[in-house]
Amino acid sequence: MNTFLPYTHTVQYYETDKMGITHHSNYIRWMEEARVDFLAQMGWDYAKLESLGIVSPVTAVDCKYMISTTFAEKITITVSIAEFKGVRLKLAYTMKNTEGKVVCQAHSEHCFLDTSGNLIRLKKDFPEFYEALCGYAGSAPA
Amino acid sequence: MNTFLPYTHTVQYYETDKMGITHHSNYIRWMEEARVDFLAQMGWDYAKLESLGIVSPVTAVDCKYMISTTFAEKITITVSIAEFKGVRLKLAYTMKNTEGKVVCQAHSEHCFLDTSGNLIRLKKDFPEFYEALCGYAGSAPA
Amino acid sequence: MNTFLPYTHTVQYYETDKMGITHHSNYIRWMEEARVDFLAQMGWDYAKLESLGIVSPVTAVDCKYMISTTFAEKITITVSIAEFKGVRLKLAYTMKNTEGKVVCQAHSEHCFLDTSGNLIRLKKDFPEFYEALCGYAGSAPA
Amino acid sequence: MNTFLPYTHTVQYYETDKMGITHHSNYIRWMEEARVDFLAQMGWDYAKLESLGIVSPVTAVDCKYMISTTFAEKITITVSIAEFKGVRLKLAYTMKNTEGKVVCQAHSEHCFLDTSGNLIRLKKDFPEFYEALCGYAGSAPA
Repeated sequence: MNTFLPYTHTVQYYETDKMGITHHSNYIRWMEEARVDFLAQMGWDYAKLESLGIVSPVTAVDCKYMISTTFAEKITITVSIAEFKGVRLKLAYTMKNTEGKVVCQAHSEHCFLDTSGNLIRLKKDFPEFYEALCGYAGSAPA
Repeated sequence: MNTFLPYTHTVQYYETDKMGITHHSNYIRWMEEARVDFLAQMGWDYAKLESLGIVSPVTAVDCKYMISTTFAEKITITVSIAEFKGVRLKLAYTMKNTEGKVVCQAHSEHCFLDTSGNLIRLKKDFPEFYEALCGYAGSAPA
Repeated sequence: MNTFLPYTHTVQYYETDKMGITHHSNYIRWMEEARVDFLAQMGWDYAKLESLGIVSPVTAVDCKYMISTTFAEKITITVSIAEFKGVRLKLAYTMKNTEGKVVCQAHSEHCFLDTSGNLIRLKKDFPEFYEALCGYAGSAPA
Repeated sequence: MNTFLPYTHTVQYYETDKMGITHHSNYIRWMEEARVDFLAQMGWDYAKLESLGIVSPVTAVDCKYMISTTFAEKITITVSIAEFKGVRLKLAYTMKNTEGKVVCQAHSEHCFLDTSGNLIRLKKDFPEFYEALCGYAGSAPA
């Protein structure tokens, strides 16, 4: 089974706020960066999904902020599939600083739509993508 | 008991993404806008908190996205205190479009620190702010 | 001739950076907010332009930052047409703080495309919009 | 003389807008990313400047947008010193897509302040930094 490389985001100056730390909204954006990278590593990058007419909106997110981060820090983000039973995909994210300490734990949930906005049944319509997601769903932390 | 006016955010063009809808990360920012307004309506605006040396970082957020929104829509955001027992403040947010439909339901959690980063006991150190938060915590949806 | 109401933007906490001031990139976004409002006041809001198949990308911007601004300040933005001779539209923006001091002076340039990306000749294809822009171009500061 | 490596920014999904392209405000942020990298390559990274008590706010920016970019494109940004005579630093940025075509040409201007907000005379107070900036100012495109 494939192992995924974590994604690294370097905190930008424009991502800090007047408290001197990274504004909390940016972690939601880093999750997207890491998710894009994760899907590419799976062999199902956004361009491929798009060319197949699959759109995957975010239906929920949650974030727990443990340790603040700031400008120039390198944050390592590990993505895993927390849950997938065919319709709803739930991803888990663990973000660590360079000391190896967890700074943020987060999840995102997604559904899959065709370009008309109708729910796609991946098992039937995109069995290969379905199998890939199922295959990686096993070893994921909740 | 005071009743709070909802906050209105008009979706900006720069908040949309190539799916044609508001990027999901922006709702986290609107929560902050609505929270700032809510605290001001309570009589405890950020400037006052800051002048008292109270810093209130976000320790957690969650968002459920129900209906997508897009450029120029006016989103009404109602804030309430979901939980407050003295240390951790949990706020609830309900966002509606102009048809009155709920587009997003969300929560944020906060603690209170002094400028050295130490946890503040509001009951002891800022009893008036403590009482205000307790007073409004009663009628809040979970 | 019509006079336009200035647009007001309240600086958000998430727009500040670790220097304690508004991050300079946000002024570019406020220009868009003020431009959207200006076109609406002219009677040519984005929705109308879009329904007519007119897309108007930004081709250039410039900003001079005079005085820094920060969280909770209310910034008044006046928009005017600096130049319009039929193809390229140049807008001028003057941003003031509540003391009436100019905090930023800026310009943006735009062209007009159809949905296939071809340059539109407004005079021929949308004479009413052309006349409106010409009419307001007279009194604009350079 | 040192040669600088260009900085690469990968366009994020959250940087696109409903036109399907990168929102123009993001290029201003990429300029900051490239500038941070440029100063680090010069041996004068932000952390060093900060530890010396040097703050360098942006006093002006300009951008010409030539070709639109979008999600997942890799943009190469070359930074050079367009002008430096001791007080005001003007940087030039050339951004290219993977085909080698220039997508954006831009400039930023900066002054140098101490932590009290007073203008610093680099030549007198930080001669090494002054010499470094002068040294690289020679070969810069205007």
